[in-house]
Amino acid sequence: MLTLDKVYHAAYILRECARKTDLIAAPRLSENCELYLKTENLQVTGSFKLRGAYYKISQLSDEEKSRGIVACSAGNHAQGVAMAASRKGITSTICMPDSAPVMKVESTKRLGANVELVTGAYDDAHDRAVELVNETGATFIHPYDDDYVIAGQATIGLEILDQLEGVEAVIVPVGGGGLISGVAFAIKSLKPSVKVYGVQASGAASMYNSFKAHKREVLSSVSTFADGIAVKNPGENTFEIISNYVDDIVCVSEDEIAAAILALIENQKLIAEGAGAVSVAAQMFHKLPIEGKKTVCVISGGNIDVNILSRVITRGMMMTGRNVNLTIQLIDKPGQLQEVSEIIARCGANVVSVYYDHGDTNMAITSCFLKLALETLNNEQINTIKSELTNAGFKIVTERV
Amino acid sequence: MLTLDKVYHAAYILRECARKTDLIAAPRLSENCELYLKTENLQVTGSFKLRGAYYKISQLSDEEKSRGIVACSAGNHAQGVAMAASRKGITSTICMPDSAPVMKVESTKRLGANVELVTGAYDDAHDRAVELVNETGATFIHPYDDDYVIAGQATIGLEILDQLEGVEAVIVPVGGGGLISGVAFAIKSLKPSVKVYGVQASGAASMYNSFKAHKREVLSSVSTFADGIAVKNPGENTFEIISNYVDDIVCVSEDEIAAAILALIENQKLIAEGAGAVSVAAQMFHKLPIEGKKTVCVISGGNIDVNILSRVITRGMMMTGRNVNLTIQLIDKPGQLQEVSEIIARCGANVVSVYYDHGDTNMAITSCFLKLALETLNNEQINTIKSELTNAGFKIVTERV
Repeated sequence: MLTLDKVYHAAYILRECARKTDLIAAPRLSENCELYLKTENLQVTGSFKLRGAYYKISQLSDEEKSRGIVACSAGNHAQGVAMAASRKGITSTICMPDSAPVMKVESTKRLGANVELVTGAYDDAHDRAVELVNETGATFIHPYDDDYVIAGQATIGLEILDQLEGVEAVIVPVGGGGLISGVAFAIKSLKPSVKVYGVQASGAASMYNSFKAHKREVLSSVSTFADGIAVKNPGENTFEIISNYVDDIVCVSEDEIAAAILALIENQKLIAEGAGAVSVAAQMFHKLPIEGKKTVCVISGGNIDVNILSRVITRGMMMTGRNVNLTIQLIDKPGQLQEVSEIIARCGANVVSVYYDHGDTNMAITSCFLKLALETLNNEQINTIKSELTNAGFKIVTERV
Repeated sequence: MLTLDKVYHAAYILRECARKTDLIAAPRLSENCELYLKTENLQVTGSFKLRGAYYKISQLSDEEKSRGIVACSAGNHAQGVAMAASRKGITSTICMPDSAPVMKVESTKRLGANVELVTGAYDDAHDRAVELVNETGATFIHPYDDDYVIAGQATIGLEILDQLEGVEAVIVPVGGGGLISGVAFAIKSLKPSVKVYGVQASGAASMYNSFKAHKREVLSSVSTFADGIAVKNPGENTFEIISNYVDDIVCVSEDEIAAAILALIENQKLIAEGAGAVSVAAQMFHKLPIEGKKTVCVISGGNIDVNILSRVITRGMMMTGRNVNLTIQLIDKPGQLQEVSEIIARCGANVVSVYYDHGDTNMAITSCFLKLALETLNNEQINTIKSELTNAGFKIVTERV
């Protein structure tokens, strides 16, 4: 049973291991509310998961501790459990799907866990974890559907109330529901006037669907780059708590999440993973009634693969006019390339790459292609470049924005 | 005259405006010391510059305040001065070179300053600022060579001593020298046993040269993407203070700075600009005698242009085997593309882009090119892919790493 006593106790225990992460004002991210960020991406292990895992593990009996623990995760929970177990001197085995990013597997090993890579997806890793528990008598550490785990995450709610006097709304990412259950329980118990909102990715809206249907609904598949909240099964305990304490849940698209990640980089100098940025995305794209309110977005984690991060930045830059790819049709005669270069230089854009081809079968025999990748300032500059090129007689064949 | 009294007074005044930025442990960034980061990239305006500017401006007389202030900067100082002036209700004019990034110009305007764009480089903007001071009687706010400005930056030293008991070494980025002068003065005055080291970019080593030569040396040009410390003129006051209080200054290369930025993203979820990351670069690449020591790296700022950030990430990823571009020579017969694709899929790499051409004049008439961009896990995987392709009879023509 989740109680405020457990939450306060968790806060006391967590002083050994977790950071009281900073609450940082983010005036430039918000047009219409007074926005603050609870930076759990700066938590030890890069996400809030350490809190629940550490508190849960600290409360095991000596006999349970001696039999070790087992968990199953493709990411943040794995790292949280691994670190918590190491700090407590307990043997941990984490079953991870073999599709998990190498970086996360390596991090989990480095934190002291035995990693068992399981062929298949999360569900297969979960089945193997249950098998291990049955074989060895180890304790299974659930990523969210556990009162001790939830009490650990709830300490974030206590910290927010302590760090921001007059807070009126808190926006929390939702996957299985452990984080928001804890935060909502702590905040509504202590200050019921504060609104607590959840955010899911549209491609993994299991808790959103359940919340709206007033019963648990399981998804057969999920699709989002916010892997930290790509959960098919809403928790049972967490669904109950969310139904009682959360004011609303909304969804955001992949592009909205990418835009939020880029905005956090540019304006706050913070790296959020997809799951961590959904709260900011909901605020940026006006999904919630928080106008004029003192609002906290919880950034739940920052463990994003750099390859994905690089694509998110590129995509975000294209969306905001910071770069553009142009394909221009030239007449195959001398001086054309120079003329195009001159126009681009005059407009102040920076050429990143050039590809020149006169072999395309879709073009007239005297024509050729010039493909340019440009770094630009904004969409206005792109439009200037395009109209100068058109005025000079060049035909822009395609543009990828 | 710089005194501890001024520094304590600055700390008191700055409570109105600046954040006491977090000190965050960074165990994964360090192999051989106990490393902490002083996160001034998370300071209001994205850099430490606000501290000195705000303290300086707060100490002007009412008459001086009424005549307004003038500053000259291409970046962080501009934003710090603009915000400080706005908060104090003072008119500010910032001369910026017209080559300054649009983002920084826009940020400075948004913070309430009048921006005057000056054709040319920093020196031209500086000349115009001096002209404005002579015309209007406004006060010039120097970016570093001013005791009040230095006292403001020195508050970072006080905070480090307060935040990390037993600190043994502090590593500080150096441009004009305002930051390190303040930090070194505060720390050496209060705890002389703590080592204070400076770091410059090799392409802008003006203070490094001066420190080694024991006299101020001015550079005729600078070249580094760490624009926040690309300074030709070491300050006069700052040079004196550095000569008295700093233990050593070292330099880092552009690639070392890029690697440090990527490491901060991956391990600490923090965005640093080039200037902000030189301290971490010096530590990562073993430039300083800090083995086993409790060490603080000051991350001085995070205002990096996203286009540059994107290139830094791409470069860092190529250096660490997270992506690769391969050009493969194929025989112009059916099934070849499929065979290559099959090998790459089997090795677990991800294809980002494909370009296929049979028109290159350097190739035999029956050959053609396949250019592939791949996302990979590490250099080991890249080598596996290359040897599998070679074993299957394909010839790898070029590889860009």
